[in-house]
Amino acid sequence: MLISPKLSKLVESLSRFPGIGKKTAQRMAWFLLSGDQAFALELVETIQSTVQAYQPCSKCLMLSETDPCPICTSKERSLDTLCIVESSADIQIIENMNEYRGQYFVLGHLLSPIDGFGPEEINTDKLRQRVHELNPKELILALKPSAEGEATMHYIWELFKDRPCMITRLSTGLPFGGDLEYSSSNTLKSAWIRRYGV
Amino acid sequence: MLISPKLSKLVESLSRFPGIGKKTAQRMAWFLLSGDQAFALELVETIQSTVQAYQPCSKCLMLSETDPCPICTSKERSLDTLCIVESSADIQIIENMNEYRGQYFVLGHLLSPIDGFGPEEINTDKLRQRVHELNPKELILALKPSAEGEATMHYIWELFKDRPCMITRLSTGLPFGGDLEYSSSNTLKSAWIRRYGV
Repeated sequence: MLISPKLSKLVESLSRFPGIGKKTAQRMAWFLLSGDQAFALELVETIQSTVQAYQPCSKCLMLSETDPCPICTSKERSLDTLCIVESSADIQIIENMNEYRGQYFVLGHLLSPIDGFGPEEINTDKLRQRVHELNPKELILALKPSAEGEATMHYIWELFKDRPCMITRLSTGLPFGGDLEYSSSNTLKSAWIRRYGV
Repeated sequence: MLISPKLSKLVESLSRFPGIGKKTAQRMAWFLLSGDQAFALELVETIQSTVQAYQPCSKCLMLSETDPCPICTSKERSLDTLCIVESSADIQIIENMNEYRGQYFVLGHLLSPIDGFGPEEINTDKLRQRVHELNPKELILALKPSAEGEATMHYIWELFKDRPCMITRLSTGLPFGGDLEYSSSNTLKSAWIRRYGV
């Protein structure tokens, strides 16, 4: 009664965002209703215009306002390395690191046949095409160390293992500031095995 | 370059929600762009129609699709207690507890003169009117135990201390599942002072 169908639909929609649980979605919904209507209307307009403006780049599949995207067209970036990521958001995170000046490719998903994400859904053909085009010296698999990430890295390694290029992945181990106590045994084991001289 | 003005405006808008930091807002923005456009358009429509449908109830100021709201018109709820809350969202939380069957009043804000929220902004006149109308036996001040919450409770107590009704507030102490180690000294002190026989 308190929660009308309209409001529960709004909560349900908001909780479909990654990392937004039901409680946060409820808070967001009430915030939209409580605030001045101007904020809600501005948000609506911003969502509409942004979503319409962004499309995948035809080379790397990153979401971009232009095609090809600013990274693929940049003359200042090396063509020797291709970094493979799960999503456009990951590119933003890596760019913020200010360490990498090569090319990217966005898979869109990780392999997870059980959820319906097979080789086609992760854009294998496009990836193969891009690798042949660029002929990079190094392929960096910047995927997360989860079951799906590991499976995807193995799959991509199988695809390109016979090419004359290095295939690398991100190091695993303890996160900075992380307590040993709160690390999973997998993380600790990986940090242990890959320990290095100080 | 990677973050166009459109996208940064979307991130900025999303991070205005309470509890949504910049990183979560970025993730949400990329999710909107990556998902099928249908989700974004549905969300936009849901926000629009919900925001337009909800207005404050003229009796209790809770946001509602009807005026008076379902709680104020319910015949099954006691008129003997009036629970004063900061926001409509708080009513939802209290209702979920399934413990209270009385009336509510929404202040809209806590007192915080430094931020421009004085007696007028917390709807003092409406509150006074509602208390006189209902003439409740108990006023429950369900406000959070922060500096602003305490100031607001004190202010409301001053307003109604001469009426023949109890004025109560929620208990303070350790949260369930909370470690002593992680409690603030204020919380621990309150739990200590208000300790009770087991």
